[in-house]
Amino acid sequence: MGEFDLIARYFKRPARRAVLGVGDDCALLQPRPGTQMAISTDMLVAGRHFLTETDPCRLGHKSLAVNLSDLAACGAQPLAFTLALSLPRVDESWLAAFAQGLLALADAHGCELIGGDTTCGPLNICITVFGEVPVVAGRSQALLRSGAQPGDDIYVSGTLGDARLALDALLGKTVLPDDVLVATRLRLEQPTPRVALGLALRDVASAALDVSDGLLGDLGHILESSAMGATVDADVATSLIATRALSIRVRGQFNINLSEDKWRRYALSGGDDYELLFTAPAHLREAVQAASRASQTPVTRIGQINAEPGLRLIDSQGQPLANSYTSFDHFA
Amino acid sequence: MGEFDLIARYFKRPARRAVLGVGDDCALLQPRPGTQMAISTDMLVAGRHFLTETDPCRLGHKSLAVNLSDLAACGAQPLAFTLALSLPRVDESWLAAFAQGLLALADAHGCELIGGDTTCGPLNICITVFGEVPVVAGRSQALLRSGAQPGDDIYVSGTLGDARLALDALLGKTVLPDDVLVATRLRLEQPTPRVALGLALRDVASAALDVSDGLLGDLGHILESSAMGATVDADVATSLIATRALSIRVRGQFNINLSEDKWRRYALSGGDDYELLFTAPAHLREAVQAASRASQTPVTRIGQINAEPGLRLIDSQGQPLANSYTSFDHFA
Repeated sequence: MGEFDLIARYFKRPARRAVLGVGDDCALLQPRPGTQMAISTDMLVAGRHFLTETDPCRLGHKSLAVNLSDLAACGAQPLAFTLALSLPRVDESWLAAFAQGLLALADAHGCELIGGDTTCGPLNICITVFGEVPVVAGRSQALLRSGAQPGDDIYVSGTLGDARLALDALLGKTVLPDDVLVATRLRLEQPTPRVALGLALRDVASAALDVSDGLLGDLGHILESSAMGATVDADVATSLIATRALSIRVRGQFNINLSEDKWRRYALSGGDDYELLFTAPAHLREAVQAASRASQTPVTRIGQINAEPGLRLIDSQGQPLANSYTSFDHFA
Repeated sequence: MGEFDLIARYFKRPARRAVLGVGDDCALLQPRPGTQMAISTDMLVAGRHFLTETDPCRLGHKSLAVNLSDLAACGAQPLAFTLALSLPRVDESWLAAFAQGLLALADAHGCELIGGDTTCGPLNICITVFGEVPVVAGRSQALLRSGAQPGDDIYVSGTLGDARLALDALLGKTVLPDDVLVATRLRLEQPTPRVALGLALRDVASAALDVSDGLLGDLGHILESSAMGATVDADVATSLIATRALSIRVRGQFNINLSEDKWRRYALSGGDDYELLFTAPAHLREAVQAASRASQTPVTRIGQINAEPGLRLIDSQGQPLANSYTSFDHFA
């Protein structure tokens, strides 16, 4: 089976939003007047970003989800994407499942596959995603990392740390009960891009990004871009680990044997969360809650932006904590 | 040295054409009113698309060149690109040279690096490129594969076959004199994207694509998209191998010991040429020559589009030749 048949069989569908889709030298996209194109690219490498034995359907989902998460962080409406795929061999059942997971998420967001490349090589998935951001009265509505101001609240959506916890469990570095692992690994393998929340935050958030390398490391990017400091309540952040909340709720039914420091480490530097981390002025707290409700996405206030540089961790009593929770770095 | 420092040191430059460049979750591009965005993506895998020991400066050039070649084939003006890079390790001298080759070609085409991703893994380079195509009176000026008509001339730009000849010489499959190899391998390692020719052909060519997998295989895509057949003069195509022309011109000085069939194979199915293959109505021959002169790019008429399906090869006497010159396929 040749490369071109492969593309056609699993990925080619009639162009809808695109003027021209898969099958020519270029795809053609015509953004609507008064909009900007938001563009992001992510490369996923086997053994680095996912375990080689990952269910290909979930992998297809995740490959697009991490890219949609970047659009969400910009407040962009997903439009289209390209897919470049390097495969060690042509495995039709793998490809069919991968395409199914990928295209199901694409369809859920009206995000069209408009072009790509397939080749033979070590498993590698590179997606570039395109979204639309309105320009209103000459001003882009895109959410950037650079807009945080002193006194702004810091929020994070959803849950934290479960993805990394699942990874450690799958690698045998920590132990989770089997039925807990089933749920927890969904956070690793099928993250939910917070697209609706990103759109709802367009006029509300002062800065935003998505948490991919770990909460504190990614917050550092906002602080650097905004030239600000911050204070973060480590205990509130740690309470957002879904697996931990569950283990507390049903105490006695199962016990996860982790120190408080280890739990904090998962929440603060776990990575692979694909939640939105954003800031908003304190007088917009009601607007943040309205955005949360409108997008059906829980958000939690975890700290505050300060003019004073540096990142300060406190516990639930307001007492300072040493910050040893550095972020995951692909070349660390 | 961390991933983020890497990006900053070698690839981050101030945004120019882009509204927002490298360093946020998304880049922002605002196409001009009355234009479409042409988008293409190519993935280059070590050992598959280039030899691992390739000079990184040339590899940087080639990685972007093959993408610009897709824009050229659409008649699109290069605008910007994203780069996703998987590297087995952080090798600063390699990265510096790669960035130099890449950004020199980008600057030559006013094509801005607006975003990317770097990670650790087997060497893999994935570029997505963006170009601009005018829409005039509601009609896109993009060159497609689907517009060839019976009686149209078939043209190819530049030279054919040298890239594959160089690859075979580097792999020890054929022998070239050292000083010949120095010149020939440039066609493999530093192809020239025919951007100016593509732009000049906007109102002239009826169909176009770039030759990456071999002349006849790629012509097959035009024929399939246009539902046409073609007749190609194999001898004219074979005369476009620069190395062969040189060996004929300086006969006696060096001798390349290849059969006529082997030469034809390089010209007709060599691959990696990155020349433009296009069709144009016969009454536009003068316009094609004008486009060639304006873009300072030689073009050669190699055949004709026929209503009768199928691809017919003839020799310089007009006699039919058997076509055993299939195209290179990444999964063949």
